[in-house]
Amino acid sequence: MNISKQTIAETFERITPFVRRTPIIDVEVPLVKGSSVEVPVVLKLEFMQHSGSFKARGAFANLLGSKVPDAGVAAASGGNHGAAVAYVAGVLGIPAKIFVPEISSPAKIAKIKSFGADVVVDGENYSAALANCEAYLAMSGAMSLHAYNSPATITGQGTLAAELSTQVFDGVDSVFMAVGGGGLIGGAAAWYQGDVKLIGVESEGCATLHDALKAGEPVAIKPQGLAADSLGASSIGDIMFPLAQEHISGVTLVNDDDIRAAQKWLWEHLRIITEPGGATAFAALLSGKYQPGEDERLAVVVCGGNTDPAVFAQGCLD
Amino acid sequence: MNISKQTIAETFERITPFVRRTPIIDVEVPLVKGSSVEVPVVLKLEFMQHSGSFKARGAFANLLGSKVPDAGVAAASGGNHGAAVAYVAGVLGIPAKIFVPEISSPAKIAKIKSFGADVVVDGENYSAALANCEAYLAMSGAMSLHAYNSPATITGQGTLAAELSTQVFDGVDSVFMAVGGGGLIGGAAAWYQGDVKLIGVESEGCATLHDALKAGEPVAIKPQGLAADSLGASSIGDIMFPLAQEHISGVTLVNDDDIRAAQKWLWEHLRIITEPGGATAFAALLSGKYQPGEDERLAVVVCGGNTDPAVFAQGCLD
Repeated sequence: MNISKQTIAETFERITPFVRRTPIIDVEVPLVKGSSVEVPVVLKLEFMQHSGSFKARGAFANLLGSKVPDAGVAAASGGNHGAAVAYVAGVLGIPAKIFVPEISSPAKIAKIKSFGADVVVDGENYSAALANCEAYLAMSGAMSLHAYNSPATITGQGTLAAELSTQVFDGVDSVFMAVGGGGLIGGAAAWYQGDVKLIGVESEGCATLHDALKAGEPVAIKPQGLAADSLGASSIGDIMFPLAQEHISGVTLVNDDDIRAAQKWLWEHLRIITEPGGATAFAALLSGKYQPGEDERLAVVVCGGNTDPAVFAQGCLD
Repeated sequence: MNISKQTIAETFERITPFVRRTPIIDVEVPLVKGSSVEVPVVLKLEFMQHSGSFKARGAFANLLGSKVPDAGVAAASGGNHGAAVAYVAGVLGIPAKIFVPEISSPAKIAKIKSFGADVVVDGENYSAALANCEAYLAMSGAMSLHAYNSPATITGQGTLAAELSTQVFDGVDSVFMAVGGGGLIGGAAAWYQGDVKLIGVESEGCATLHDALKAGEPVAIKPQGLAADSLGASSIGDIMFPLAQEHISGVTLVNDDDIRAAQKWLWEHLRIITEPGGATAFAALLSGKYQPGEDERLAVVVCGGNTDPAVFAQGCLD
């Protein structure tokens, strides 16, 4: 599958019966702390997607478009990708085996199991779980489903941008998305083709795209910080990277305090709970680290909500 | 002000620059526990309204439509109404004094103060706070703003139904709303005029409308149970009651377990946190206590999100 506006449109049509059309809301946001000057921002509430993040789009794009072997699918992830693959496989009646590292939270493991997947908890970190998964794939013939570095995944995540285009009738100048491995923003880059300013937002501890654009090629990083559980890829995907170089306007870096402040603001002003990665794109605006031009029409994707409310309260609320 | 489709439309136009157009989302809901048969339901996400509930609509309808005395406004409430009056007065630059009982949570008191209102914490229960408020109103000449039993409040809350009519393009057969004092459903009754089935949902401990319809007149109740903090009016408002008799199809009663299950479902499947009163209308469907007809198109108002995430986690999640 090539990644293009057309394949995204076709994929959008194919997965539409299975994914939620997540809503947008217009809000007013003070871009300077304590200022009474507020700027209109469109939020795309993708955390309400099945399995709690946009990752369900990519998983449906992979599994609805392929002949899946009898052994089913396998993925290594203790996070949003694992939950999405388990959810989608459950809906489609496909066996799924998810390899999660021992450090994963019991809540996330329980969530993945609740969708009917077979969960293998083994290995002290993600790399170990991935090695277990790869050994299983080689042995079983199951289908591998990559979290970000595959054309079907990127095309599937791009349907979020296609959907947003049907919702923001007045037009938008700039769209903000958090970046981990780059599946979401890669798909959006292919969809928009430069028609809007597409801004990647990364936490300083997970700056895969920022570092790659600077180096001119994907470089390895050691993910760390608050958002590492959802944005912590070890490098940007090489499949999306040329799209990023061509169609992404820039990357804004935020720190963990900015992300916590964004999470807190979204709760206090909108009663929305997000995981750190879900609030990262919004943090670029709320922190003032991205300064929009006058009348620049801004849209932000709030991309994931898989956190524990008690943990959220402890970490983000006074 | 008389309460009619026309005055609601006029009020909707007047308050539109000040309130959020809250989104809707289509979801699939299993109406029988453990069943794989799911029914489409439209959720109106009004908990994202300013101040965390629909009450901001009624407060704007009161204050934008009136000449407010120099002494400003006063209200007795430690809950959603108090937060809404404080928020709206703050936006409009009107002095506000909110009388809250000593039992109110520090979080809610802090929220009301954060909007710039003067908060008087005095009296052991709501009646005592109300007495304090009334003494202040008589002494100061400030404007009183009733939580539900006033034409402007009812008309303002009715704008939620007017807004929903612009959003559900495919039509809807039945609309579900939680009922406390009846401001919201009274406004909706005046808007719909029987064009849709309008279903009130009450917790067994706060069955003001159920009991009033049975008795043929408003009767006093002693509010209790999980949702009493937001739905716990001591009787249905007598201003809306004739509208209820004429235009409301029925009342479904749910219990506290049904409400907790609805809160839990909304979190697990949609990453939405609601207060108990905010999930009460949805509980009528999820519990199976309301059984829709075949192909009956259902819409549910999720009306409030003012809870503490840590308390939510403790009460609703395993």
